[in-house]
Amino acid sequence: MSEPPELTNARSRGALARWLPLAGWLAQYDRQSLGRDLLAAVIVSVMLVPQALAYALLAGLPAQVGLYASMLPLVLYALFGTSSTLAVGPVAIISLMTASAIAGMSGADGAALSTPEMLAAALLLALISGAMLVAMGLLRLGALVNFISHPVISGFMTASGVLIIASQLGPMSGLRLSGGNLLEMGESWLSLPQGAGVHWPTLALGLGCWAALTLARRHLKQGLMALGMRESAAGMLCKTTPILAVILSSLLAWGLRLGEQGMALVGSVPGGLPTLSLPSLVSNDWSGLLVSALLISVVGFVESLALAQTLAARRRQRIDPDKELIALGLSNMGAGVSGGMPISGGLSRSVVNFDAGAATPLAGAFTAIGILLASLWLTDWLAWLPRATLAAIIIVATSSLIDLAAIRRTFRYSKGDGAALMITLIITLVQGVESGIIVGILVSLGLYLKRTSQPHSALVGRVPGSEHFRNVERHEVETDPELAILRIDESLYFANARYLEDTVLALVAQQPSLRHLVLACQAVNLIDASALESLEVINERLTAAGVSLHLSEVKGPVMDRLKRSELPVNLGGEIYLSTFDAWQALSIHGSHCGQCCARDGVSQTAAAG
Amino acid sequence: MSEPPELTNARSRGALARWLPLAGWLAQYDRQSLGRDLLAAVIVSVMLVPQALAYALLAGLPAQVGLYASMLPLVLYALFGTSSTLAVGPVAIISLMTASAIAGMSGADGAALSTPEMLAAALLLALISGAMLVAMGLLRLGALVNFISHPVISGFMTASGVLIIASQLGPMSGLRLSGGNLLEMGESWLSLPQGAGVHWPTLALGLGCWAALTLARRHLKQGLMALGMRESAAGMLCKTTPILAVILSSLLAWGLRLGEQGMALVGSVPGGLPTLSLPSLVSNDWSGLLVSALLISVVGFVESLALAQTLAARRRQRIDPDKELIALGLSNMGAGVSGGMPISGGLSRSVVNFDAGAATPLAGAFTAIGILLASLWLTDWLAWLPRATLAAIIIVATSSLIDLAAIRRTFRYSKGDGAALMITLIITLVQGVESGIIVGILVSLGLYLKRTSQPHSALVGRVPGSEHFRNVERHEVETDPELAILRIDESLYFANARYLEDTVLALVAQQPSLRHLVLACQAVNLIDASALESLEVINERLTAAGVSLHLSEVKGPVMDRLKRSELPVNLGGEIYLSTFDAWQALSIHGSHCGQCCARDGVSQTAAAG
Repeated sequence: MSEPPELTNARSRGALARWLPLAGWLAQYDRQSLGRDLLAAVIVSVMLVPQALAYALLAGLPAQVGLYASMLPLVLYALFGTSSTLAVGPVAIISLMTASAIAGMSGADGAALSTPEMLAAALLLALISGAMLVAMGLLRLGALVNFISHPVISGFMTASGVLIIASQLGPMSGLRLSGGNLLEMGESWLSLPQGAGVHWPTLALGLGCWAALTLARRHLKQGLMALGMRESAAGMLCKTTPILAVILSSLLAWGLRLGEQGMALVGSVPGGLPTLSLPSLVSNDWSGLLVSALLISVVGFVESLALAQTLAARRRQRIDPDKELIALGLSNMGAGVSGGMPISGGLSRSVVNFDAGAATPLAGAFTAIGILLASLWLTDWLAWLPRATLAAIIIVATSSLIDLAAIRRTFRYSKGDGAALMITLIITLVQGVESGIIVGILVSLGLYLKRTSQPHSALVGRVPGSEHFRNVERHEVETDPELAILRIDESLYFANARYLEDTVLALVAQQPSLRHLVLACQAVNLIDASALESLEVINERLTAAGVSLHLSEVKGPVMDRLKRSELPVNLGGEIYLSTFDAWQALSIHGSHCGQCCARDGVSQTAAAG
Repeated sequence: MSEPPELTNARSRGALARWLPLAGWLAQYDRQSLGRDLLAAVIVSVMLVPQALAYALLAGLPAQVGLYASMLPLVLYALFGTSSTLAVGPVAIISLMTASAIAGMSGADGAALSTPEMLAAALLLALISGAMLVAMGLLRLGALVNFISHPVISGFMTASGVLIIASQLGPMSGLRLSGGNLLEMGESWLSLPQGAGVHWPTLALGLGCWAALTLARRHLKQGLMALGMRESAAGMLCKTTPILAVILSSLLAWGLRLGEQGMALVGSVPGGLPTLSLPSLVSNDWSGLLVSALLISVVGFVESLALAQTLAARRRQRIDPDKELIALGLSNMGAGVSGGMPISGGLSRSVVNFDAGAATPLAGAFTAIGILLASLWLTDWLAWLPRATLAAIIIVATSSLIDLAAIRRTFRYSKGDGAALMITLIITLVQGVESGIIVGILVSLGLYLKRTSQPHSALVGRVPGSEHFRNVERHEVETDPELAILRIDESLYFANARYLEDTVLALVAQQPSLRHLVLACQAVNLIDASALESLEVINERLTAAGVSLHLSEVKGPVMDRLKRSELPVNLGGEIYLSTFDAWQALSIHGSHCGQCCARDGVSQTAAAG
């Protein structure tokens, strides 16, 4: 595969290219790129039509909202995005979060929202979360998403996958279930009225579609390759099987008049283009949407960025997180003013787009044209589409979110990270997506703070005949009853400052012969004002106890700061450049070893840092 | 001063002593200890009477509440506390926070609370915050207070000092001012009705007391010593000058009938003992007290613990934070059921208690008896006490909270810590104590996370002829165009995992000749699951780019964990015990130096850790 026009040089082309990455690559756009973008757009459009309808229904919105969210936002992303292959549009998790956000609202009269009110709320949500993303981009806050740890994302994705699949069991079976988490769904199942049972034709069609799609996903590619098709072509064809399921089941519903027998169909989808307008405020509690909008922005951005970076790395391109924030934000704002729901980068479509060879973001704009044509010409046919088919498509597409191997892997690596993953997963399942992501972030931050608040430290001794010092409990090393060298394995800050005091004072209490204590600071990357006070307290108490406090291997940036305090002046002992220097000066072995080992004077002249 | 009976051995005396430190020292209690405790109790009681009245009024409560809070709580602390010298009781900051908490409530009818309702709320607050402290103690959460950094405490104390002094300007001048922060106080000053001006006799008396107390504080000790008094006796006598101010100004108010001329007096204080009873729920929004109670517990505990530890260190005793939580919690619960307000360890009284030679917590119990006698016999006299005198006592006692030198010192040491201090200070001044402490904690946590999310890293080279490696930008070192050694100066966790990816990939992009990259991990104390994934991503991308990724100086605990992942297997390069090993194996200089320098094989055999 040849290299696409370089996106990475866009920065050098001045202010226009700085905000409009398009300006960077359009000049180099050629016939070959056009061909690749068009091919990718056709395949992605065919995938996107059923997904757009399905995710709109998942969000509890009219089906056409998914189509509208697949036009203007894609064009805006093509103009402002820095990824050449990210395919934006409605995605499962964001749709689930949208449903959850809208379900949490009530109308002006306190009752549940009517359909037009829900639609207005969805548009508002897209507009607000888009504006938040743009603001974060302008403030260069892209790095903030790093505070969501991988285990939290992993637990959240798996739980969301389970919730999405559970939410589709209703449409698959004809049961009217509802709820934003497993508890609510179970409750709604238990409280089903008498006679509101399974609709067997719906279940049969749904299971049939599910089985066919699953089989196609697992075996069709090999089958086509056995028939002589190239691997890449076979792979792409497999991704379009959902459209086949859509066509066949629509024909079935039309031919057998299944709608008249009680099967839920998509029903009349208004054809044509969405109108541009600002969403209206549906109720007084629209400010309640702010938290939901923030979570949707963050989750959508995290997913999109990870996806864009993974794909970009394969082509050695780079993604600019802050520009991505702006591009995704404008796309969401575009969705909000053109009748669409909140959007994000979609995993399966982006991978297909990449595999099909999309060369520039223009592929996305061409996809938007494909969706436009579909909503002009295909809406009459889409009315016949059974909802159970869409439910089967969602279930098959979503099952890849569930990653049980990650749970095992994370637990094996670290119980703490595993616990963060499981807590996020369980809270998401039983409390819903918003509580899940918030609790997950808090748990992983708390876990990190707990880890750093009880730092590892080790008494070290000299490896005989060398300038190296190692843990006395793990190695055979030289020690000295009058000298203790404590290696601190953590930056010193307020949360562990008192812990350090306790460790040092307990050490001194245990070793009455002690005259010198050296804190070896090679792993201390920071000493904040609280830790400085603790060091001063330690120094004071050790001095009172007749023990001198010394420091060694203080890093350059840390030392620069210490020099601005009074600690170096008040210190009972010295600050040594290396632990070996301290050993030579303070140990009973020191003078002897100083002569045979310090052959080049390195440790005396080279500052640590 | 001889050593008091050892408190630290209490642990060895079994289960009783484990929960009742009293059991540890009572057996050794002798006549000498009794004498010291009695002397300390007399002096502290004399200090405490006016302070107890003043802090109750500061909290917006009847004056006797301060006396009630100085009986049962002191006895309970004597039974359960581990500090031999901490003097608990009403203190300025906790009283200010109590006032703020009660001011935030409204009664059952939505109106402001009446005095009996405010009293009931204060008792409930003491009971709840006491129960919270006990629960934290049983759960061994004493270490949680470490998450309040010193700059935040410093900013909070200074701002509280300013707020307390500002709140006393009203009683000092006869103006009726109110409010929990400077903005509200300013507003209440501007909206004073016509004619509600300064009451000049009150102001004169208040300023007179203030000037006398300030002068006594600054010069009386030297004066008494010049007259031949011993320094310690002179110091203690100075601390009791407030009682002289109380006696003289009460006599003045009685003799000149100042109450009839419009001066605010303490008025009738019910004599005798408080009755024991559970506080009643005053209104439906009592749950609103929970946050206030938590903040009062935490602030009270932080202050008490710091004070107890400072005093204990001077006598080489140790304080057990979890037992202190239980002791302070029971004391507060005791206050709640005996008509008292929330309490904590008081700075000035504890220092006096220490200086007077209090040998055991029994000194506190004797102080309680002193207060009991005062409330039996002195209440008729206290009715004549002008409030302006109490305001002057509070202002003089509180001025020590304001520590402007700490602001300068913190800013000089670190702009970030200085900013946390200033933000806490300003928010406390303009929003009140509760917002101040919450925002302060969040800011200092955020600051720490920000610092660690953008870790320092340095390309290092070999100090010629040695096994040491130093920053190429700070030192003259050997490097190799095919080998880069990057020292990471931070633990790797989710917040900086992507930052590491960016740093490494940018480095590789800049140095096209690179074949080997070594991450030197001596300052990496943790690699969490997110960072592990980032390392895997880095490894994958480097391998694809033809660069081998190596690690060196991985610490024991970190390596133990890495072995449970697939990274060591998938790694493109090796994991070296020392950076020098990596240099020998990978550098063009390596083979040469390997012969002349690795004379003892230390770096090959000694694992880092």
